[in-house]
Amino acid sequence: MDIQDLSQRIAAGERRALARGITLVESGRADHRAQATQVLAALPRDRQALRIGLSGTPGVGKSTFIEAFGMTLVQAGLCVAVLAVDPSSARSGGSILGDKTRMDRLSREAGAFIRPSPSQTHLGGVARRTREAVALCEGAGFDVVLIETVGVGQSETVVAQMSDLFVLLLAPAGGDELQGVKRGIMEMADMILINKADGDLKPAAMRTCADYAGALRLLRKRPQDPDGYPKAMMVSALAEEGLDTAWADMQALVSWRREAGFFDATRAAQARYWFEEDVRSALLSKLDDATAKRAMEQLGSRVAEGALAPSAAAAQMLDVLDGNFGPARVDPVPDSP
Amino acid sequence: MDIQDLSQRIAAGERRALARGITLVESGRADHRAQATQVLAALPRDRQALRIGLSGTPGVGKSTFIEAFGMTLVQAGLCVAVLAVDPSSARSGGSILGDKTRMDRLSREAGAFIRPSPSQTHLGGVARRTREAVALCEGAGFDVVLIETVGVGQSETVVAQMSDLFVLLLAPAGGDELQGVKRGIMEMADMILINKADGDLKPAAMRTCADYAGALRLLRKRPQDPDGYPKAMMVSALAEEGLDTAWADMQALVSWRREAGFFDATRAAQARYWFEEDVRSALLSKLDDATAKRAMEQLGSRVAEGALAPSAAAAQMLDVLDGNFGPARVDPVPDSP
Repeated sequence: MDIQDLSQRIAAGERRALARGITLVESGRADHRAQATQVLAALPRDRQALRIGLSGTPGVGKSTFIEAFGMTLVQAGLCVAVLAVDPSSARSGGSILGDKTRMDRLSREAGAFIRPSPSQTHLGGVARRTREAVALCEGAGFDVVLIETVGVGQSETVVAQMSDLFVLLLAPAGGDELQGVKRGIMEMADMILINKADGDLKPAAMRTCADYAGALRLLRKRPQDPDGYPKAMMVSALAEEGLDTAWADMQALVSWRREAGFFDATRAAQARYWFEEDVRSALLSKLDDATAKRAMEQLGSRVAEGALAPSAAAAQMLDVLDGNFGPARVDPVPDSP
Repeated sequence: MDIQDLSQRIAAGERRALARGITLVESGRADHRAQATQVLAALPRDRQALRIGLSGTPGVGKSTFIEAFGMTLVQAGLCVAVLAVDPSSARSGGSILGDKTRMDRLSREAGAFIRPSPSQTHLGGVARRTREAVALCEGAGFDVVLIETVGVGQSETVVAQMSDLFVLLLAPAGGDELQGVKRGIMEMADMILINKADGDLKPAAMRTCADYAGALRLLRKRPQDPDGYPKAMMVSALAEEGLDTAWADMQALVSWRREAGFFDATRAAQARYWFEEDVRSALLSKLDDATAKRAMEQLGSRVAEGALAPSAAAAQMLDVLDGNFGPARVDPVPDSP
């Protein structure tokens, strides 16, 4: 493959080249990974998209919202990429976003690019792949990248750590369901959107919105928020209501943060965070090597038998790793710790 | 220090020697750690205590329970050690168990040994130290080791992974508070004890007990449980009621698991788990070295400035670590990723 050619075509905004680049990024093969690194390095680094993280559990109408919100952006002349972080997709047999036909209109727009979640269970890997896919979309000149997650386990934290704005999408609920959203998630949200504020559900949506607005006021004020944020508001993806207002409010928040210096500071802190995470996972990946796995298995069996204490076996394993996985160090382990 | 002498005195059951050994185990100093490893290696390995993990949030009467339950065991002729895992103790300015006077009677018993939680915030370190303290208590000939935790964050999982039995202590509650206990914690529990089943609280304790008994029946049956387990029952530490029954039920469960092979299998799996955890944390501790920290800081700053991509910087950091932290590798990093 011609890396230079692929990078140039991605930088020119070619959708198929971008899709190819993301496939490289998502691949588990070492040669693909190396090519992905080269592609990323060859892309223009002066392009910046607004990264919006979007979390919502199944049933809140997330696909409908992304389609309607994406159309709002496209109609405003912006290019929008939609990426999914769904650590459960391998289990559930398909991504929430796997079915592009659920975003029928948006996927046919020239200004839009929709990429389903890769089938991966390991969240750490998903995080790196998604970050690199975001970087590819930025290099391809997108104005907005929507990173959606289904909110399983730690996936919200992962998405929030790679987003400029973190938006929580909720459905209208009974009065006592406020506690369904964990406090930690509430604290990450820059904006809470109550979807389905239409028809019969409108009264419930109003109550839910008021409940969350109240809950947000109770949280400690964050330095990165101007007055009135984080904010809870109602939208209807179905009736296409409130989307313009939501977008205007997002832009107002981003402008304020840019001027106050929080936007760049947050990106810098996020980059540093991912660097440290990458170092940690690279260190741990030394255990994925076949020889290392064999040594772990051998030593682990001796520990399980009680012949060796866990900490003593760990010290021996570190010797094995430091000695370039020399198998001679593994077999003749002494019997006492 | 004479390691051999210390080990022999611990093995002879001397309380002060045991306390000294635990201090070594808890120390952050490398020479103390090396001595601790030697002490552990010199102890008899054929002694086994029943390890009971006990979780309960503040307010459930945990200290009172441990005292009353510990006295039950001591009066049955058993030697009991009480250890605490409290990752919050550094923050809250003192361990739950820091005040031995709250276990006034038990601490005066010759057959009892009470050790407060060390002031540590890092749960990983607490886990290793507690495991080694448990091993010291076993080497000292204790029959039962109670490992208590306050249930902050992941501490219950840590304690359950080093216990033969995991007991959840709860207070009587209103009917709708069942959800206060996370499902994951319920699934770890071998026994749920509703404390304070005395006086005015008795009716509430009966309701709470019935609620949890019902909830436990809804969980999927685990292979390691005979009929009727996991079990919810009422106790009153204050009135000293139900403690004999609870202990008899614990013994019945342990006997069944021993005969069915689950007891040894679980210990083997736990030892293997801790070996793997120790290897992972030893790998990550390569980043604690002063030179490594400096390199992380330098590369992290370049990443934060946008001069280097996180993954490219991580690759350079790995080179630094593999090259024995040679600082020459850090400074002249090229500007592009």
